[in-house]
Amino acid sequence: MAFLFLSTPERAAVWGPMFEDAGERFIVGEDAVTDPAEITHLMCWLPPKDLGRYPNLKVVIGSGAGVDHMPKMPEGVTLVRTLAPGIDEMVRDWVVMATLMLHRNMPTYVQQARAGQWQSHAVPRARGTRVGIMGTGRIGALAARTLADMEFDVVGWSRSGRPVEGIQVFASDGLDDFLAQADILICLLPLTDETRGILNETLFAKLPHGARLVHAGRGAHLDMDALKQALDDGVLTSAMLDVTAPEPLPENHWAWRDPRVFITPHIAANTDAAEGARHALAVVRASRENAELPGQVDQNRGY
Amino acid sequence: MAFLFLSTPERAAVWGPMFEDAGERFIVGEDAVTDPAEITHLMCWLPPKDLGRYPNLKVVIGSGAGVDHMPKMPEGVTLVRTLAPGIDEMVRDWVVMATLMLHRNMPTYVQQARAGQWQSHAVPRARGTRVGIMGTGRIGALAARTLADMEFDVVGWSRSGRPVEGIQVFASDGLDDFLAQADILICLLPLTDETRGILNETLFAKLPHGARLVHAGRGAHLDMDALKQALDDGVLTSAMLDVTAPEPLPENHWAWRDPRVFITPHIAANTDAAEGARHALAVVRASRENAELPGQVDQNRGY
Ligand SMILES: NC(=O)c1ccc[n+]([C@@H]2O[C@H](COP(=O)([O-])OP(=O)(O)OC[C@H]3O[C@@H](n4cnc5c(N)ncnc54)[C@H](OP(=O)(O)O)[C@@H]3O)[C@@H](O)[C@H]2O)c1
Ligand SMILES: NC(=O)c1ccc[n+]([C@@H]2O[C@H](COP(=O)([O-])OP(=O)(O)OC[C@H]3O[C@@H](n4cnc5c(N)ncnc54)[C@H](OP(=O)(O)O)[C@@H]3O)[C@@H](O)[C@H]2O)c1
Repeated sequence: MAFLFLSTPERAAVWGPMFEDAGERFIVGEDAVTDPAEITHLMCWLPPKDLGRYPNLKVVIGSGAGVDHMPKMPEGVTLVRTLAPGIDEMVRDWVVMATLMLHRNMPTYVQQARAGQWQSHAVPRARGTRVGIMGTGRIGALAARTLADMEFDVVGWSRSGRPVEGIQVFASDGLDDFLAQADILICLLPLTDETRGILNETLFAKLPHGARLVHAGRGAHLDMDALKQALDDGVLTSAMLDVTAPEPLPENHWAWRDPRVFITPHIAANTDAAEGARHALAVVRASRENAELPGQVDQNRGY
Repeated sequence: MAFLFLSTPERAAVWGPMFEDAGERFIVGEDAVTDPAEITHLMCWLPPKDLGRYPNLKVVIGSGAGVDHMPKMPEGVTLVRTLAPGIDEMVRDWVVMATLMLHRNMPTYVQQARAGQWQSHAVPRARGTRVGIMGTGRIGALAARTLADMEFDVVGWSRSGRPVEGIQVFASDGLDDFLAQADILICLLPLTDETRGILNETLFAKLPHGARLVHAGRGAHLDMDALKQALDDGVLTSAMLDVTAPEPLPENHWAWRDPRVFITPHIAANTDAAEGARHALAVVRASRENAELPGQVDQNRGY
């Protein structure tokens, strides 16, 4: 059994020694494969076209936190996404920052600063400000905790409605009730057939008028035209996006220079190479023991 | 005994009924005073010139969280600053936001957005980023807790070095050691003779090269020219200021449009009228019982 690594040389330099220490055979790049039958695990951003080349392949580990860009796996191959505490914490930090920036009117203050304008506005309090988190999984639950500790009134929404400590979580069919109490809406959903395009005109209309949008899911969740319309109509007050459609956002896109919108170029998180390697080693061990793989994707559900 | 209220009509409309409910005599504005000897407590931003007019005055409550703008009180008059949980939480929220904004390179991303530039930079992690809080009083301790919960490595500095749960606090004479480990420096000091101008060239030089500055104390703590020089020399990477010298900052001041600097117009907090009134009533009760007054200022120390 061998692990085929298809990512950058910088990462290979970190993973290699860690796999060696663990006594695992580690091959960097398809050109280095002498016996395709040896490959049981493969790590990549996107898999090579012809996975059929590896008859004994059991597990593909995607290097991202999401797998929405991944093709369907061949029969018998399990898809795994990368889990790392660092990713969760980094996205949490970005989400907390973005929530505070919209809550505390940074779009207005940044715009005023350009004009040299010293002009204060009412200071809103976290207590009494309702934050709604779409997707209360690993990252959503972490963000919920910090925001609730800061006294925001946090509610969540997820497919199952699975409880998260300290906050009320609505299940799928509770979407409208959930939206009605989200002064600040945070999207931390995975991109699936069910969630594609979910941030659209119909959804925005169900929010309290003048709500704010924090988006760290995937670009294709959001209808950017609907966002512009909602901002123009006052349905939304402001938005902060780490993901856009398309990515990269073209230089002349309206959203870059709209004072109501902050955009960061998909930098809510990146994966620390050592954490990624530790996760991959845990996957290898679990698959050897026929245990559930950490980060295993349900390919029917899509996440 | 009567309470003389010298603030806005909007606040008077909230305070009046609360004082009435508490059975306290409440007078709005000096013109309404018929018997100056009746006045024992007075609330104001700045006191009237002739406090000697009120022979039985015992307590002056400043409506701000700081009293640096206050004149020396006459013999026998105790000065109190306004304490309110809302103020502390609002400033904490602003400080957490500003810390994350500098930590996550928002100055760069906002500047890039103006140019429509999709360009990512290494994502720093809170864990391992050292945050130094100058002034670990009510607000500093609150900010320390949230930032430590987010895994920042937080240290504090205060006059006494009084312990704060979960973080190391350096006392006055530990300033240099404290500064040497502040990748992000947060100022939450009161303005006193000892702290005026403390954020200057000498201090910046003691920080790790390229440190970031979050300032929510008072404008006069900071030498704005030294800030510009430190940014130009790379001694500091970026800064976020809620307070400036002077205030308001003139429209043509360099700092407004410097991409390395974010400025908000002294809006980290404002006082909720009802919370202010509750505090004032607590002061009245305490002074009647000869107990220590909440928010009592040590006029020698200056805070
Ligand atoms: N911007 C970035 O740099 C970045 C970085 C990392 C991740 N992300 C995004 O964040 C997402 C979440 O990551 P995670 O690790 O927290 O994922 P996770 O642990 O799998 O959580 C996903 C959450 O979304 C819910 N969900 C899925 N489909 C749903 C549907 N159709 N309706 C309602 N709720 C649904 C899940 O509900 P159940 O609890 O019922 O399963 C779960 O609560 C990723 O998929 C990715 O899109 C972005
Ligand atoms: N931007 C805004 O809107 C806003 C709003 C509210 C407050 N503020 C600012 O925040 C400040 C702090 O408020 P707070 O309620 O937290 O005050 P606080 O509870 O009195 O705490 C002040 C802290 O500063 C320390 N300190 C005072 N003089 C010092 C010196 N010479 N050297 C070292 N440490 C010194 C104190 O040390 P000890 O613990 O030893 O006494 C204490 O830890 C206010 O004074 C004001 O300047 C700004």
